Amino acid sequence: MKIYIDEKILTKINKYIDLNSYTKLAVLTDKVISSLWLDKLKDGLKKDFLLITIKPGEKEKNLKTLTFIWQKLLENNFDRKSLLLNFGGGVITDLGGFAASTYMRGIDYINFPTTILGAVDASIGGKTGINFLGVKNLIGTFYEPKMIFIDTFVFSSLPKREFIAGFAEIIKHAIVADQKYFDFLLKVADIFDQKNLKKVIDWSIKIKTKIVQKDKKEKGLRKILNFGHTLGHAIESLSLKTKKPLLHGEAVALGMIGESFIAQKIGLLKKEDFFLIEEIIKKYQLFQKINLSKVYLKRLMINDKKNINQKILFSLPEKIGKAVFNVEVSEKIINLAIDYITL
Amino acid sequence: MKIYIDEKILTKINKYIDLNSYTKLAVLTDKVISSLWLDKLKDGLKKDFLLITIKPGEKEKNLKTLTFIWQKLLENNFDRKSLLLNFGGGVITDLGGFAASTYMRGIDYINFPTTILGAVDASIGGKTGINFLGVKNLIGTFYEPKMIFIDTFVFSSLPKREFIAGFAEIIKHAIVADQKYFDFLLKVADIFDQKNLKKVIDWSIKIKTKIVQKDKKEKGLRKILNFGHTLGHAIESLSLKTKKPLLHGEAVALGMIGESFIAQKIGLLKKEDFFLIEEIIKKYQLFQKINLSKVYLKRLMINDKKNINQKILFSLPEKIGKAVFNVEVSEKIINLAIDYITL
Repeated sequence: MKIYIDEKILTKINKYIDLNSYTKLAVLTDKVISSLWLDKLKDGLKKDFLLITIKPGEKEKNLKTLTFIWQKLLENNFDRKSLLLNFGGGVITDLGGFAASTYMRGIDYINFPTTILGAVDASIGGKTGINFLGVKNLIGTFYEPKMIFIDTFVFSSLPKREFIAGFAEIIKHAIVADQKYFDFLLKVADIFDQKNLKKVIDWSIKIKTKIVQKDKKEKGLRKILNFGHTLGHAIESLSLKTKKPLLHGEAVALGMIGESFIAQKIGLLKKEDFFLIEEIIKKYQLFQKINLSKVYLKRLMINDKKNINQKILFSLPEKIGKAVFNVEVSEKIINLAIDYITL
Repeated sequence: MKIYIDEKILTKINKYIDLNSYTKLAVLTDKVISSLWLDKLKDGLKKDFLLITIKPGEKEKNLKTLTFIWQKLLENNFDRKSLLLNFGGGVITDLGGFAASTYMRGIDYINFPTTILGAVDASIGGKTGINFLGVKNLIGTFYEPKMIFIDTFVFSSLPKREFIAGFAEIIKHAIVADQKYFDFLLKVADIFDQKNLKKVIDWSIKIKTKIVQKDKKEKGLRKILNFGHTLGHAIESLSLKTKKPLLHGEAVALGMIGESFIAQKIGLLKKEDFFLIEEIIKKYQLFQKINLSKVYLKRLMINDKKNINQKILFSLPEKIGKAVFNVEVSEKIINLAIDYITL
């Protein structure tokens, strides 16, 4: 798998990959991305392709949309030597990756993330999937893309809210794996600056790929990347049923606060480090509290796929730059954490 | 992956595997198998399990039944450390394998084939999948079982038609890979004899695993195992829409005759060898002709997943015991073959 990071890859994709080595090409994207970037993508591909456009949003990461993609590929006679290009955020790369991994038992695919969150997290590492019966990513595969293209210029069109939400996973990388990175993120003056942004994306990708290489199927070490996600996924699932659904990164930021609270409460994390984590999340203007039902939150967590035999296991920081996984936490402590992050 | 072949494994499964190393166990089976063998299976497992029973038949290898299995696993709090035991024919092992490969991005599974066809073919090699929009195995994964249990005693309950249909894949193994095996199958007096049956199953499994080991994802060599299947899948799909659906093995036998006809017609296979192939299929009482529409047959073949860029490629024998793959065949020759095998 190769990762290319640069400005303006979009308009010259065909320089990076020999599209003629594939029988057919499909591009999976959503309506918003399509309206912004489709013309430039066409310039870059210089080749006919099947366009599969879906609605934007986490709700589309479902079985029905997956079925729609399979059907489009079949109707257009896609075969084992065809290629799928996923052009969008985490929803598109997760969904498209799963479609590619299962169509004819697996075809090649490329991820071209259009969000910061996608660039540093969802597009890397081969996790694909859909949500099922209210559980995030319950159904999916491990199946790596052939290539990943990251064009930092594309991020300039992101709404501020999405731009910011992308930093949740970046902050997570720093907390679980790299104290120097954390210090940089805490001190950097202008993160919107293109040079700083490229540096941060590079840094995060190096952390993530290093961890994934050591443990592709998440049997052990890779679980540290789930920090913030056990609570975060429950928050996200629940918020999807409200009128104001959270973005994935926003839910993860709340999850990181709740789980750092737990780490501190069980004596794993020092209070100073917990405060630093709260400080960095505040600096990046991510939510620190949320208005959601704690009863429902608890119920959702029980089905979270990271739980083994109904125990609720967490990946938690033991200091800034280092995390541990498979930490069993009592329901009582979890309830306190949920109290802490809910209004 | 380990394969155990013996008489009466069923009642002592728990001697072969430490079921307590898994958080939960589910058994996927169909109503017919369940009524015949469930009590004995319970004896062998000596452990509580979730029973998932579906209707028998190829029609169940669909998205709806897959969704039903996912849902059952979720409702019963199955997690990443749970185990699925597929107990049945090819439909059960294909469907259960796919469910296992995608539930929480993959859990362990065991195949316990109850048909000869399952034992020598479907249960081995990690191909999983469902049929989709009329195309056989369009959606699936490559995902190997942890173990395969083959209990030859279980085959004694097979209806004669299913027993015989299982020999199609056995004959295929001989044609594509082993002339001595072919001679044995052609000359053996009583194939229903337990000793001969065990010998044949052993022999076929060795051929199949050897080929699969060399080419797990079917990029090359493994394609020779598709001999009989390009035509065979089309025949099977079409027959499923009639009142008298064929068994997979019956369709493959017809496919092997049609494709051997092609091999002979294009000068790849000698006439004597073609006659020997017809002779062996006759000996095992498999159909040599079928009453189906050739127009529909042709149309179905175009979507067969083994075709690259809409060319129709075949795996064909060049003599008894040796096959080649990716042979492009003209529509004209294919039509002649379809004429030959249809009434």
